[in-house]
Amino acid sequence: MINREIHFAQRPSPQPSLDCFKLVENELGEELKDGQVLVKNLWMSVDPYMRPRMNDVKSYIPPFQLDHVLEGGAIGVVEKSNNPKLPVGTHVESMNGWREYFVSSGKGLGIRDTSTIAPQDYLGILGMPGITAYVGTKILGEAKAGDTVYVSGAGGAVGSLVCQIAKALGCTVVGSAGSDAKVEWLLNTAKIDAAFNYKTEADFAAKLAALCPKGIDLFFDNVGGSQLDGALLSMRKNGRAILCGTIEDYNEAPEKRHGVKNLFKVVALGVTMKGFVVLDYMAEHHQAFTADMAKWRSEGKIDWQETVYEGVDKAPEAFLGLFNGANLGKMLVKLAD
Amino acid sequence: MINREIHFAQRPSPQPSLDCFKLVENELGEELKDGQVLVKNLWMSVDPYMRPRMNDVKSYIPPFQLDHVLEGGAIGVVEKSNNPKLPVGTHVESMNGWREYFVSSGKGLGIRDTSTIAPQDYLGILGMPGITAYVGTKILGEAKAGDTVYVSGAGGAVGSLVCQIAKALGCTVVGSAGSDAKVEWLLNTAKIDAAFNYKTEADFAAKLAALCPKGIDLFFDNVGGSQLDGALLSMRKNGRAILCGTIEDYNEAPEKRHGVKNLFKVVALGVTMKGFVVLDYMAEHHQAFTADMAKWRSEGKIDWQETVYEGVDKAPEAFLGLFNGANLGKMLVKLAD
Repeated sequence: MINREIHFAQRPSPQPSLDCFKLVENELGEELKDGQVLVKNLWMSVDPYMRPRMNDVKSYIPPFQLDHVLEGGAIGVVEKSNNPKLPVGTHVESMNGWREYFVSSGKGLGIRDTSTIAPQDYLGILGMPGITAYVGTKILGEAKAGDTVYVSGAGGAVGSLVCQIAKALGCTVVGSAGSDAKVEWLLNTAKIDAAFNYKTEADFAAKLAALCPKGIDLFFDNVGGSQLDGALLSMRKNGRAILCGTIEDYNEAPEKRHGVKNLFKVVALGVTMKGFVVLDYMAEHHQAFTADMAKWRSEGKIDWQETVYEGVDKAPEAFLGLFNGANLGKMLVKLAD
Repeated sequence: MINREIHFAQRPSPQPSLDCFKLVENELGEELKDGQVLVKNLWMSVDPYMRPRMNDVKSYIPPFQLDHVLEGGAIGVVEKSNNPKLPVGTHVESMNGWREYFVSSGKGLGIRDTSTIAPQDYLGILGMPGITAYVGTKILGEAKAGDTVYVSGAGGAVGSLVCQIAKALGCTVVGSAGSDAKVEWLLNTAKIDAAFNYKTEADFAAKLAALCPKGIDLFFDNVGGSQLDGALLSMRKNGRAILCGTIEDYNEAPEKRHGVKNLFKVVALGVTMKGFVVLDYMAEHHQAFTADMAKWRSEGKIDWQETVYEGVDKAPEAFLGLFNGANLGKMLVKLAD
């Protein structure tokens, strides 16, 4: 049978483009060995964290290898099985995204219950973006009632959940995003207290200061660079800044990144800045995350937005869309029904 | 009687110079009111934190006022008294530095025991620099045996104590400083594990990486800017950075400051950066600080270095010397015997 998958064709320099990707067709053998399963992917995830993996730089996860199939979260269904633990019809989550089918020994596959949960939720609200938002806001950020919380990248998968988790915890929430559509969603659907389009604001720091008259107790930063720099000017005494991503920098050559000049505020205000990678917190907090999220959803406090591209051939376009504001909420690629 | 004091004559723009200061003589009245004392200052302190106070910017302490006498830590002795709680001969610490004499109601004066302690120690090893080093290293920095600790500004009053406290706690300690004399003192007297002169290193980040082969567990930063940026590249997973000062920035116009571009490392490595102002920690930790410091000194683990200028008229020169490496250890001005 024919499988289509996306290979990594060239490294960005520094802007990624469609040339970085190559659609490859290959033949999967018909016969499964003992213990193997054939998985048909239903959904795959594209996420900003994948962009640093395209650079040839060691980090918390290894860089993508050229001329290999890309990796990323996916959820699929077992279509053929030679493994009694993974019968046909089992939904499985894996890091084997960017392909339609794969054969697996079962290693690295997580069985997922889809009886009451949409399969793609495991890539979003109940998956990595969800627990990232939860850990950063409630656990590390210690958001509590009365806090002023500012969220950069508030229209993305993580940011949109941070906003709503903070609201559920009783905070006053201000968000910035890169399109008017995202701002409208934040105000009218997520119902946060204030939101603005940073691309059309002449003075980012002044706008933020005006929207946070008491200052920022908790800053959840997905963007870094100029937005981090501006937000530092509005931090409150003993405020917390949770650094989750630096998407502003991802497509810039290192020498062109915005250098942050306001770190003296961290000293003068006793600010705590904490960076994190959610992988380090998943095991410990997964249970509480699932319970809290189920409660908040049942109370109608969490809306969830998806932007969906269809077909593995559209995955590169979906990925690139993360960097030009094409996604409202979680960007997903639907690979099969 | 004649009192000489230093007034704030003009704000730096941005380099401070002798023109920012003016020596003023005034006549102190002979008669003390009920409850008043006349204090003769013996020693005054000059510290880097005073530089930001020279800008007309609100911060954790108000800016200095033009044409007023400057403020800062001082220790003196009661020379005349109309206050039974402060008899003649009592040593008192105050924020009334930059002057030879002052009359006080007693408010803001702290009585200091000088029977076994040199008066100027209250401005240094047992005063603000000492407890700053202690809180940043042991309390907030959680330095523990086996940690690699890197200290910027390691030859200054705070940095030189951080180095030795970290050694006393069993850490491997690397320091950078701005003169060969400081480096020699760090290696031969403070006996830290490695030290280098950042001014003569072509590649700061590479040098630091070479001296910290296992990476930095705890970074105590007095400097900020380019040194913070470089050190972020050598942080270990879950490392801590304690931000105590940004002396590199103090004399730069904001637009000329070095912008920090490596904050993505804070995310990828799960680094915690914590800024602090010691005033917020003094009450809680003073007792433990005094006890620990007495123990370490009795064990010969803490050397203490002073650079002394004589006469209130030399105070501006002493202050300016903080920014061109004139001080090894604590910079003090001796005002009287």
